[in-house]
Amino acid sequence: MKHFLSTSEWERDEINKLLDNAVRIKAGQNPGSLSKKTMGMVFFNSSLRTRTSFEAGMFQLGGHALNLAVGGGLWDLETADGVVMDGARAEHVKEAVPVLSRYVDVLGVRAFAEGADYAFDRTDPVLSAFASYSEVPVINMESGLWHPCQALADALTWREAGMRPRDNIALVWCRHPKPLPMAVPNSVMMMAAQMGLNISVIRPAPFALDPELCAMASEEAEKNGGSVTHTDDVNALAGARVVYAKSWGSIEAYGNAQQHSAFTDDFSSWQVTGDLMKKTDNAVFMHCLPVRRNVVASDEVLDSEYSMVVQQAENRLHVQKALLLKLLGVKQ
Amino acid sequence: MKHFLSTSEWERDEINKLLDNAVRIKAGQNPGSLSKKTMGMVFFNSSLRTRTSFEAGMFQLGGHALNLAVGGGLWDLETADGVVMDGARAEHVKEAVPVLSRYVDVLGVRAFAEGADYAFDRTDPVLSAFASYSEVPVINMESGLWHPCQALADALTWREAGMRPRDNIALVWCRHPKPLPMAVPNSVMMMAAQMGLNISVIRPAPFALDPELCAMASEEAEKNGGSVTHTDDVNALAGARVVYAKSWGSIEAYGNAQQHSAFTDDFSSWQVTGDLMKKTDNAVFMHCLPVRRNVVASDEVLDSEYSMVVQQAENRLHVQKALLLKLLGVKQ
Amino acid sequence: MKHFLSTSEWERDEINKLLDNAVRIKAGQNPGSLSKKTMGMVFFNSSLRTRTSFEAGMFQLGGHALNLAVGGGLWDLETADGVVMDGARAEHVKEAVPVLSRYVDVLGVRAFAEGADYAFDRTDPVLSAFASYSEVPVINMESGLWHPCQALADALTWREAGMRPRDNIALVWCRHPKPLPMAVPNSVMMMAAQMGLNISVIRPAPFALDPELCAMASEEAEKNGGSVTHTDDVNALAGARVVYAKSWGSIEAYGNAQQHSAFTDDFSSWQVTGDLMKKTDNAVFMHCLPVRRNVVASDEVLDSEYSMVVQQAENRLHVQKALLLKLLGVKQ
Repeated sequence: MKHFLSTSEWERDEINKLLDNAVRIKAGQNPGSLSKKTMGMVFFNSSLRTRTSFEAGMFQLGGHALNLAVGGGLWDLETADGVVMDGARAEHVKEAVPVLSRYVDVLGVRAFAEGADYAFDRTDPVLSAFASYSEVPVINMESGLWHPCQALADALTWREAGMRPRDNIALVWCRHPKPLPMAVPNSVMMMAAQMGLNISVIRPAPFALDPELCAMASEEAEKNGGSVTHTDDVNALAGARVVYAKSWGSIEAYGNAQQHSAFTDDFSSWQVTGDLMKKTDNAVFMHCLPVRRNVVASDEVLDSEYSMVVQQAENRLHVQKALLLKLLGVKQ
Repeated sequence: MKHFLSTSEWERDEINKLLDNAVRIKAGQNPGSLSKKTMGMVFFNSSLRTRTSFEAGMFQLGGHALNLAVGGGLWDLETADGVVMDGARAEHVKEAVPVLSRYVDVLGVRAFAEGADYAFDRTDPVLSAFASYSEVPVINMESGLWHPCQALADALTWREAGMRPRDNIALVWCRHPKPLPMAVPNSVMMMAAQMGLNISVIRPAPFALDPELCAMASEEAEKNGGSVTHTDDVNALAGARVVYAKSWGSIEAYGNAQQHSAFTDDFSSWQVTGDLMKKTDNAVFMHCLPVRRNVVASDEVLDSEYSMVVQQAENRLHVQKALLLKLLGVKQ
Repeated sequence: MKHFLSTSEWERDEINKLLDNAVRIKAGQNPGSLSKKTMGMVFFNSSLRTRTSFEAGMFQLGGHALNLAVGGGLWDLETADGVVMDGARAEHVKEAVPVLSRYVDVLGVRAFAEGADYAFDRTDPVLSAFASYSEVPVINMESGLWHPCQALADALTWREAGMRPRDNIALVWCRHPKPLPMAVPNSVMMMAAQMGLNISVIRPAPFALDPELCAMASEEAEKNGGSVTHTDDVNALAGARVVYAKSWGSIEAYGNAQQHSAFTDDFSSWQVTGDLMKKTDNAVFMHCLPVRRNVVASDEVLDSEYSMVVQQAENRLHVQKALLLKLLGVKQ
């Protein structure tokens, strides 16, 4: 049984084959059937695209996805080992996950980082528990560290934008009122490395990504003929054919709201605008959504011809269908 | 591509044809299939009948409806243009709506008026945004101004009650602890006008409906051989063959809770009772539900043989199936 | 039309036939189809297993289950007769239930006891209202008094554990931070009686079950060759082949939080541990879930080979499929 927790656990060839299938599915070819198959989507956090695309996708393949929102009609779940459960959490993942996996054929789980203690969050406790206790494949629908379904959609979008190995992409940090998850920048960096792109991560120094993940990505990039560079200089946009905007929180200020605000204030001009896009090689614009207009990126950019954000979000549907078929063993 | 935002945008003949199909569907004739089709139902407000009837209806036609509750697991959505999104709303309809319309085949949206500023609410900002940005047909599942799916069900119920052009219907305002939406009375008035009925809107003066909509309805009624009259005299019930009870808020006291309470207190006896029904021409009783018993109408009325409220609610299912088939281009 | 409100209303032979079908369904035999059939699941309280197993089960049979959470997107519902509805509850079950039953083919309802007044809660007001006003079969998905779907799953699990009439089972009260519903212990006691087992209800005196229900169960047990005994002596575990752990509230302290805490403190050692299990005849361990680890039962017990809790929860799926097919008239 194979889980899908991070693209880094999957081989480049496997990912490319999955993207090939996604292209065929998007083109309308019969992808095979998931008749009678069910997916349980367990959400510890909000979702629009993830939930809708999985639910629509499962149905279009003949299956059914159940929307299970923890705390909203579901018991709150405990994940820690050996705890005396006399608090608010009425059920442990050690029961909930095996039981769910008796009812459904594949489980998706979304559990963001808690945001207080980076060392703890870095273990992805909820996702790890699901992966340990599930008797069916688990799909990471965004954890603290990774958002691999987004990365698959991004990679398909890069193909559609004509990106090839050694082409340049810039991942640009943007300001935001609160410290956002790092799952998307981590996954974009890793997927770009797996696809052999040259990726520049452009961010102020306090917003540097996790050093170990950066090292993993560099190693992977090298293997595939690409590179990963980190800089706080927006002139690194020169030559970029894709600008991927995203805000994320600071590891340095993790769990420290005051310090985080101070850092964000220091870099309050970091927004993707039409002027900034002019520094690139005629780049397209990407963002995983939801995006705060005129905070992360300007109306001008989001309403432009070169914005691919809607197409990028649509691609979630196609790559996830390919993923579901793969995990549930339907021949492609 | 055609939306369904208000019955006033649809021709009388189109509506009658749709009702003909609803009659056949209710009788059990095979209505055609929506196999593999999905509907996204976006709820900014609560629902029982709307959500359940659409979800059951889509399934019975071979399709699937997704229940997307804004704020309950979905990001809160911004609708204003050009805003700097540094507040609570994490996503703009300019992204959310096109993206949703890539995943599904038809979008329903329920967004009540906010209740503070009538001029603003009158623009139906959320519904309008969905209609502008969606790439698939949009169904109004109740906006500030209109509840056209209810109006279709009402028109089918009028048929079943034997109502014909120039027959008399009374729309009666009733007291209620809070200012309720005007979408249903607006839609009932307009649909009665489109069907050529004579409709008396019986309400205290401070609860007069929107003058422009009243003018639209009068013009429509005239075209179809009927009439619209407005009065605060309950003796206008004489001759009525349908009593349609409904509470709604006062435009005069819009956003002013104190003045609204004062108005409501002045007319605290306005409730549909068995005695009131005796003033009519043996009328049937209708209400869109939910209805507050012994506030809006008495137990005696709601539990009577002449109450059609359950049948009226059932008709939501049949008319909406006909509507979905029409909007998704299935030949009837 | 037949409802499923309590196993006590069904004949032993009917239940056994239903369990026979559940065994065949679990073994993968084609159970017949619920194509085009819909179930409305109305939840006044949280759920994981019930909601997921019904939704997955309906889909696997070709049907569809709608998840309707009262208060979470649904209007809050009034159940009392003759009330002037000027409070928070916008809709009465007298309208909501008949309307829902026009949209769907079977209704499930979960409504726990309110916990203030035992005499009131004992009437199961919400469930009773659904049973009265529904035009389609009603399934009790747990009321104040009964959880009969759990009891069916338990009975199937007893079969799988090799239990036969006159075998010994112990239902053991355990401590818990709050007064939990009595529906499960009531249903386990009654089902054990219907299956002709010898059941020992082991609980401190203040946690004695409802005397009338105990009398009903004793009478039923006698008819079927078994017995029901009540004791506060854990040595009654000797000879037990099943230990069914469960916490529940005290009728004596009903609605009195302070007295309830005092009672619970007096019996704070009541937890199922490995040592306690050693008093039995090599018993298996059961619990309906969710279970608080190291409060109700220890990690050692829940992680043991003799714990059947996951299998027991899985059986919900199979028995409920058999139940749905029976209620909807599909020949088995």
